[in-house]
Amino acid sequence: MEEIKEEQATGKLVTEIGRQAREASRKLMGFGPAQKNKILLSIADALDAQRKSIRSENLIDLEEGREKGLNEALIDRLDLNDKRLDAMIQGVRDIADLPDPVGRILKSWKKENGLEFRKTSVPIGVIGMIYESRPNVTADAGALCLKASNTIILRGGSEALRSNRAIADAMIEGGRASGLPDHALQLIPVRSREAVQKLITMDEYVDVIIPRGGEGLIRAVTENATVPVLKHYKGVCHVYVDGEADREKALSIIENAKCQRPGVCNAAETLLVDQSIATKWLPKAARLLESKGVELRGCDQSREIVPGMKQATEEDWSTEYLDLILSVKVVDGIDEAIQHINRYGSGHSDTAVTENREHQDVFGRMVDSAAVYINASTRFTDGAEFGMGAEIGISTGRLHARGPVALEELTTYKYVVTGQGQIKE
Amino acid sequence: MEEIKEEQATGKLVTEIGRQAREASRKLMGFGPAQKNKILLSIADALDAQRKSIRSENLIDLEEGREKGLNEALIDRLDLNDKRLDAMIQGVRDIADLPDPVGRILKSWKKENGLEFRKTSVPIGVIGMIYESRPNVTADAGALCLKASNTIILRGGSEALRSNRAIADAMIEGGRASGLPDHALQLIPVRSREAVQKLITMDEYVDVIIPRGGEGLIRAVTENATVPVLKHYKGVCHVYVDGEADREKALSIIENAKCQRPGVCNAAETLLVDQSIATKWLPKAARLLESKGVELRGCDQSREIVPGMKQATEEDWSTEYLDLILSVKVVDGIDEAIQHINRYGSGHSDTAVTENREHQDVFGRMVDSAAVYINASTRFTDGAEFGMGAEIGISTGRLHARGPVALEELTTYKYVVTGQGQIKE
Repeated sequence: MEEIKEEQATGKLVTEIGRQAREASRKLMGFGPAQKNKILLSIADALDAQRKSIRSENLIDLEEGREKGLNEALIDRLDLNDKRLDAMIQGVRDIADLPDPVGRILKSWKKENGLEFRKTSVPIGVIGMIYESRPNVTADAGALCLKASNTIILRGGSEALRSNRAIADAMIEGGRASGLPDHALQLIPVRSREAVQKLITMDEYVDVIIPRGGEGLIRAVTENATVPVLKHYKGVCHVYVDGEADREKALSIIENAKCQRPGVCNAAETLLVDQSIATKWLPKAARLLESKGVELRGCDQSREIVPGMKQATEEDWSTEYLDLILSVKVVDGIDEAIQHINRYGSGHSDTAVTENREHQDVFGRMVDSAAVYINASTRFTDGAEFGMGAEIGISTGRLHARGPVALEELTTYKYVVTGQGQIKE
Repeated sequence: MEEIKEEQATGKLVTEIGRQAREASRKLMGFGPAQKNKILLSIADALDAQRKSIRSENLIDLEEGREKGLNEALIDRLDLNDKRLDAMIQGVRDIADLPDPVGRILKSWKKENGLEFRKTSVPIGVIGMIYESRPNVTADAGALCLKASNTIILRGGSEALRSNRAIADAMIEGGRASGLPDHALQLIPVRSREAVQKLITMDEYVDVIIPRGGEGLIRAVTENATVPVLKHYKGVCHVYVDGEADREKALSIIENAKCQRPGVCNAAETLLVDQSIATKWLPKAARLLESKGVELRGCDQSREIVPGMKQATEEDWSTEYLDLILSVKVVDGIDEAIQHINRYGSGHSDTAVTENREHQDVFGRMVDSAAVYINASTRFTDGAEFGMGAEIGISTGRLHARGPVALEELTTYKYVVTGQGQIKE
């Protein structure tokens, strides 16, 4: 009985948050670039002014996390030290400096009947953001959404609730001083799971859900949501070394893609090597990677070339290790490489190292991933490296946005059609 | 027991259809414009050659439909007479003539580190199409999807199964003669509901679902789908007559928007009139509309101006009549009109009749609909009128596509990034 009451109360609370977010979104749609940037700078100032109270709330989260036995990786992500606070505040200022994504004329044309069409970028509306541990996402995502004239409903991890609340409070207070509408940025203030369930099914009030966190969280959100979801489950990224690869480039690219930061989604998980180059090149690559502490798991052919390599199982080909582990497969040319990537990959980021123009073209055309590279590391897939500024996430979905989800991807469009009294014949 | 077995068999069948559609999609991605157009023309020829067998299957559907007691409207939509067959075949030829939507460079840029970015339009992949009665959709949707290098899984209404099967068979046979990959176009050949349930939850094999039909069908699909859905529920479209409207334009636009074809989604359902013009203009409009057989349902103020008008209830403001009925409301200026539209509208198509430049601007900017018109009828919202050629549907969703869903909207994009060995610092 008690539980049902609580669930109903949570449902009511979240519905009200949604209703208010929609209302605020109608107001924010009318705001111009200057006003939005003024609000963002006020938000940055308020975060700066409130750093002490944000940190003290964060310290309580950290203490509670340790008591609850969170592992060190989670504790680290939760920790909002001075350097991270600096970066978070600077991030908001940087977003103010980016070009306004709203009101761009994407296309315009005139028909013979005199109707003038303008396809214009407009805000998506209300964004629901669901995320784990890192409290800085509260500020990053909030600032990005506001810059694109979207209102945002934030639902952070329960272990970071105090930190997130302190950040959101500072942002709301700072923004309000420069005219941010009430409820344009809201944090769901309860820890219950029902809140998430309600958020992801409020089609009437929420236009898109962006989940960030482990694959489990993202699957649960996607399976239960009726609101559209922008997401990636994982990044199983490939480096393909062609028969006509520059061997030095290939070595430095696989090293960078695997080792520079193995725990991120655009790191490589599988190395594919054309058989014509494998005997000569693969042993060098193996030595280099093993010297960096990488465990190699190979197919039969690669294990013949590099004895001592562990055997890769079928499961390895679709595994995101997020660790210093790499699966290795010798392939019979570029077509098999492309087939392997399209079959086992996650549609995130894949690269071919090759000097052969035709191979470059066919790889670029036929690999069905958000970012397809020729002679460059997969690690470049993020909003900043693409030149988009900050990003709110990466999408491996195929609709609306693929790859980095930055300001332009936080807009949609409408058609404004101007006539002089035209009616349909 | 029997039922469970049947369900499992259907699930297996549809899964296999999905797997094959994905495989075919990988092949189709490599096809150029010339080959696709050749396939489309072969399809049109095959439909023409098979018209007799298509019609004879259609006659059986019609007979069974009459026996089952389908109403006249449904029977009419099911009827594939000669004229409609001609239009269907010509539609496929017209699609061959449209520009290829795949492989367009949407944007390209170069970063200081030498990386070259090309944002390129690519097929979405596998489209699931769920539709009711009209068998011509089989050919229209099939041809549009193939033109954009997508494979398609069709699931038509069970009352049209024989007609759809005859059309799909002719298309597959005709297409194959020109190199259409097997399984690039498939029709689910069973009548059971489980087939739909499976189709809309096969995330692995299906990239987007496009449902066309009544609001009930579309809601059921949306609520149960895990695959993204492009759709519109309904069109509650508005004509707003401003205080500074050209009165003659206003009369012809409301007449056209309401009466020219009341049963379609871009027909007007609500007339909003500024109070400063209502006393003079509304009686004229009422006389005109009533002479065309339109039933008016008004707010208190409009009923004072036009006595005898029926009273509009709260429900009327969000009702899609699809009939010669119009709700009428007097508003206090453009801001109230915009608020009313954003609150009760369906985000489809809305128009303002006004000569005032500032009012035109604010209406274009603040009305949150897929198509916002100034001084033109709402009836123009469709792919052909927009100059996009044929459309597969209209979207009132906010992600990926808004308004007419035509060839460009049946593509997505990827980034092809070319370097010379760049690694991430």
